[in-house]
Amino acid sequence: MKITSADLENLEKSYRTNLINSLSGFKGVFVIGTSDGNQSNLAIFNSVMHIGANPGLMGFVQRPASVERHTYENIKKTGVFTLNAVAKSWIEKAHQTAARYPQDLSEFDAVGLGEFFIDSFDAPFVANSKLNIGLKFVEEVEIKSNSTLLIIGQIEYLQLDENAIANDGFLDHVQLETAASVGLDAYYSAEKLFRLSYAKPDKSPQKL
Amino acid sequence: MKITSADLENLEKSYRTNLINSLSGFKGVFVIGTSDGNQSNLAIFNSVMHIGANPGLMGFVQRPASVERHTYENIKKTGVFTLNAVAKSWIEKAHQTAARYPQDLSEFDAVGLGEFFIDSFDAPFVANSKLNIGLKFVEEVEIKSNSTLLIIGQIEYLQLDENAIANDGFLDHVQLETAASVGLDAYYSAEKLFRLSYAKPDKSPQKL
Repeated sequence: MKITSADLENLEKSYRTNLINSLSGFKGVFVIGTSDGNQSNLAIFNSVMHIGANPGLMGFVQRPASVERHTYENIKKTGVFTLNAVAKSWIEKAHQTAARYPQDLSEFDAVGLGEFFIDSFDAPFVANSKLNIGLKFVEEVEIKSNSTLLIIGQIEYLQLDENAIANDGFLDHVQLETAASVGLDAYYSAEKLFRLSYAKPDKSPQKL
Repeated sequence: MKITSADLENLEKSYRTNLINSLSGFKGVFVIGTSDGNQSNLAIFNSVMHIGANPGLMGFVQRPASVERHTYENIKKTGVFTLNAVAKSWIEKAHQTAARYPQDLSEFDAVGLGEFFIDSFDAPFVANSKLNIGLKFVEEVEIKSNSTLLIIGQIEYLQLDENAIANDGFLDHVQLETAASVGLDAYYSAEKLFRLSYAKPDKSPQKL
């Protein structure tokens, strides 16, 4: 099937939204924890990405369409946020954080997830998650084409099961039971196929 | 296990690179096709992301560490590029496009992938891929924290199996046999768990 840019423009809006959101394939799913200094906020994002390893930088896309952007406002206020990998056992709770709860209700309470804090870090972590990442805000970048913001944080704190870390630092997300997602609302379980050796011109990649 | 920013700085470099690259979880895997106007280039990227649905925008992160950035240079020259979803059956070939081949050798020939072109679009598509996306370059954004570039394109052309598109536009990547990845070198197969209904405060999400 061939679809041109003219065809895309003529698609019904929700159909186009679903299709285009699905194109990028499998994505990680995280809930982002923030605080306004008093009230905790938790919101699901499937736009978390690796930005760099030295220093350790991660980012996420903040959509302009969000009328209420508590996550963004809280990060600008406190300077910190947490990324908590969603595991298969609590996907429904993570998904439900997207509902528009009253501002004075914490999504932790609304959906039934546990929170914990560490010293001198004003954002909540999710106790249910097997991979907690605390970041300090370092940069926001505007994508002018659609007024989307890319929010970048530097990794300040990691908490995870050390048994899931391989000898070379690789993290086994299958052991962590991390979920994957596609588009706006589909969730997946992943099975490892293999790791491949560093690609060199004169030989085929080997399974590690 | 708790890891502070001071611990991270003290980790051996390749260990830290593997660990931090793994944190963002499951990612889509694409090979990006470009041309310098004469010679085709193909390179694997696992940083492809959804940017917006109207207009249809997708992006990828171009690392500053790449000494040779043929993909970026070609996009700036021709104004177009293709994203081709990597399927499980040809992961090794996609991985091998990362090898540093001589500039006068097309990665299509070097790794054994087929290419095709469409009219008036100066970038090659991958015949082996079940999801081909043609984009025109619209914007590059610099992430100043580590001099990384986010390259944004607008979707001009799609080619895929229409049987993989659900009635509401959602695309079934399991049917397309799309691969997922973690970190620099690990590849995965995904199984669908469920789709969930739009989150509303007054009810639990329903499986669709």
